Amino acid sequence: MKKIAILGSTGSIGTQTLDVVRSNGDIEVLGISAGKNIDKLEEQIREFSPKLAAVWDEEKARELAVRTKDTNTRIVAGMDGLLELASMEGSEILVTAIVGMLGIRPTIEAIRAGKDIALANKETLVTAGHLIMPMAREYGVRILPVDSEHSAIFQALNGEYRKEIHKLLITASGGPFRGRKRKDLEKVTLQDTLKHPNWVMGQKITVDSATLVNKGLEVMEARWLFDVTLDQIQVVVQPQSVIHSMVEFEDGGIIAQLGTPDMRLPIQYALYYPHRRYLDGERLDFAKLGSITFEEPDMDTFLGLPMAIRAAEEGGSMPTVFNASNELAVKKFLRQEIGFLDIYEIIGQSMERHKKIENPDLDEILAAENETYQWIESRW
Amino acid sequence: MKKIAILGSTGSIGTQTLDVVRSNGDIEVLGISAGKNIDKLEEQIREFSPKLAAVWDEEKARELAVRTKDTNTRIVAGMDGLLELASMEGSEILVTAIVGMLGIRPTIEAIRAGKDIALANKETLVTAGHLIMPMAREYGVRILPVDSEHSAIFQALNGEYRKEIHKLLITASGGPFRGRKRKDLEKVTLQDTLKHPNWVMGQKITVDSATLVNKGLEVMEARWLFDVTLDQIQVVVQPQSVIHSMVEFEDGGIIAQLGTPDMRLPIQYALYYPHRRYLDGERLDFAKLGSITFEEPDMDTFLGLPMAIRAAEEGGSMPTVFNASNELAVKKFLRQEIGFLDIYEIIGQSMERHKKIENPDLDEILAAENETYQWIESRW
Repeated sequence: MKKIAILGSTGSIGTQTLDVVRSNGDIEVLGISAGKNIDKLEEQIREFSPKLAAVWDEEKARELAVRTKDTNTRIVAGMDGLLELASMEGSEILVTAIVGMLGIRPTIEAIRAGKDIALANKETLVTAGHLIMPMAREYGVRILPVDSEHSAIFQALNGEYRKEIHKLLITASGGPFRGRKRKDLEKVTLQDTLKHPNWVMGQKITVDSATLVNKGLEVMEARWLFDVTLDQIQVVVQPQSVIHSMVEFEDGGIIAQLGTPDMRLPIQYALYYPHRRYLDGERLDFAKLGSITFEEPDMDTFLGLPMAIRAAEEGGSMPTVFNASNELAVKKFLRQEIGFLDIYEIIGQSMERHKKIENPDLDEILAAENETYQWIESRW
Repeated sequence: MKKIAILGSTGSIGTQTLDVVRSNGDIEVLGISAGKNIDKLEEQIREFSPKLAAVWDEEKARELAVRTKDTNTRIVAGMDGLLELASMEGSEILVTAIVGMLGIRPTIEAIRAGKDIALANKETLVTAGHLIMPMAREYGVRILPVDSEHSAIFQALNGEYRKEIHKLLITASGGPFRGRKRKDLEKVTLQDTLKHPNWVMGQKITVDSATLVNKGLEVMEARWLFDVTLDQIQVVVQPQSVIHSMVEFEDGGIIAQLGTPDMRLPIQYALYYPHRRYLDGERLDFAKLGSITFEEPDMDTFLGLPMAIRAAEEGGSMPTVFNASNELAVKKFLRQEIGFLDIYEIIGQSMERHKKIENPDLDEILAAENETYQWIESRW
C-alpha cells in the first residue's frame, strides 16, 4: 500500500486524487484537509477513514470534530493542522492540491520530513522556487508535477538526460478569448470568462487561463521544476488541448505527451511514477480528432504571459507580486467588482511600484504578498 | 571513441550514417561495405580509413583492392566478406543499412559476436524476427531501430515499462497517392510513384511508401521489436510526417516523437542511445507548421497494409513470401515491366499459392524467398 496525504482534498484536484485512490485500491489516504468545506470533508472521512483531517477554519474544525466523534479520524485546525498533516508519520507523498500561498509552508514542512511532493499548488514554485528546489535536493525528495503541462514535460523527460534539453514547449489552449483583440476584451463578462474550451477546472484557474496568467505561472514553475532558463521555454498555442506539452532535445527530436483532458492522468502518474496504471475514461481517437493546430500566443492582447515572463526575468520577490496581485484581482473579478482588463492593470501597477527584494526568504515572500494585497485594497 | 561497422555504407542510410560520424568526430568506422558501388566505397575508404571494406560483387572487390593498394584497408568479398565485417573485432555496433534478405546472415553473425545492431534492414525482423529476437536476448545485444517510425517508438518508450504499453500508433504519410481510389491507381506512372511527399529516400522504399507495403513491413517489424501483438499496433495516416510515431500506455497517456524528416536523427539516436547529441539542421517550427492532420489508412485501396497484416497473422514463412514477392514486384515496376496495381496482384497470388512453413529456420526462409522469386519469374 502506498500511503499519501492530501492538502486540499475537497477541491478539484483533491477530489480527483481521491477518484484515483478509489479506482486503484492500493493507496491508503492517511490525511486530508479543507479550507472550510466540512460537509465534503466529513464525507471523505467516512469513505477513506484517514488518521488525520485538517481544517483551515478553526471554528469549522471544531464543528467537524463534533460531527465525526464516532470515527477514528483526528481533526486538527489552522496552519498548525496543515503542517501536522504535511509531515505526518507514515505518509510517503504529500499531494499539495491547495490553492494559494497557503500551500508553501506545509510543502516545506513535508520536504523536511522527507515526503515526496505531488505538486499541484502553483504558488510554491512561482514564489519560492529558489528555496524549494535546493531544499528538495538536500532532503532527496522528488517534486512530482501534477499540473497537466508539467506532467507532460515530466513524462517526456522520462529516461532522458536533463542536460540534453534544448527547450520546453508548453502548450496553451489560448483560453475562451483566443483570437480576440484587446478592444474585444473590454466588455467580456464573468460568464464568458468561465467557459474554458477544453478543461473543467476551478474558477480561479479558469480565469487565469483566459488571461494567460496561468500560462505565465506555468512558465515560472517550469523554470524551477526542470532547471532551465526562461529562454529555453516557449509557449505554443494548441487550441484542442490534445498535446499537453513537449520537450525539444539537442538533436531536434521532440517528445510530446498527448491525451484527452483528464486531470486524473497526471495525478495518477505522479502517485505511481515511474509506473503507469490502467485508467478508465475516454481515449484519444486520432481519426475522429482530425487535426491539431498551432499558433503563436498573442502577447499583445493577453498580457498575463509577457507580464509573467517579465516578473520571472526580474526574479527575487517580483514573481510573488505578480502572483499575489493576480490572485486578488481575480477575486475581485469573480465578485464582479472589476472588469477583465483591470486584472492586467492591477498586476502591472503592482509590479511597477514594488521594490524588488533579491533572494527573499519565506517571511519576505509572505510580506511582499501582504503588502501587495494591502496596496491593491487601498486603491481598488 | 565508439567503434562501428556499416553494412551497406554507400546507400541512403549508409551515407547518412557517415554524415553523423563526420559531424560528431568521436566515432571510429572500422568497416564499411557496398554491393558494387566501388567508386563511392573508395571515397569512403580514403576519408574514413576503415580496417575492412567488404564488397558483395567479387569482381568489383578485386578491382577495388587494386585501386586501394596504397591504403591500409583490407578488401574482402562476397557473403564471407560481409560476415567478416559483421563480426570484426573491436566493433561495438553493426549498422545494417543494407537492403534485402542479404542482411540477415551478417546480422545473425554480429549478434553471435556480441555486437549491438543499429537496424535499418527491414527484412531481418520481417522474415526472421522469431529467430533474431530470442538470439539478441540470448547474447545480450541491443536491437536499436534506425527506421524513423521505430526509432520514434523506441524514443517514446525510453524510461517506460514495456508491459504498460497499450498500443503502438505507427504514423504513415499515406504516400503520393493518398486520397486516390483503386481505379485512380490503374494508370499511375513510375515517376508519380517516386514523388514522396516528405522524405527523400531510396527508390525501393519510395515505391513501398506509395503501396503502403512499407507501412505493412513496419507493422511486422514493430511486433518483434517491441514484443506486442498485432492487435496492439494501429496505423494512423499523418500526411505532414511530423509525428514519427506514438505509444499509448495503459493510462491513456500517449508519448509521441516529432521532428523534421531527417534520417540522421534516428541514426544518431541509435549510435549514442540513450544519449542525444546536437544535430545541425532544420527544427520544427509549430507556428509555421500550422496544423497536423490525421486520417485512417484506406485499406481498401492501399492493399500493402492489409496484406502485410494478413501475412503477419499467418506467420511462419508467410511474411517472407510477402516481402520477397513485393521485392521482386517492385523491381519489375521500377523496370517499368508491370503497372502499379500489379504489385498487389503479385504479392496476393504469391501468398495464396504458398504452403506456409511454421517456425522456419534461416535455410527455410531463404528457400521460401527463392521459391517465391522463381514462381513469379515463371509467371510475369
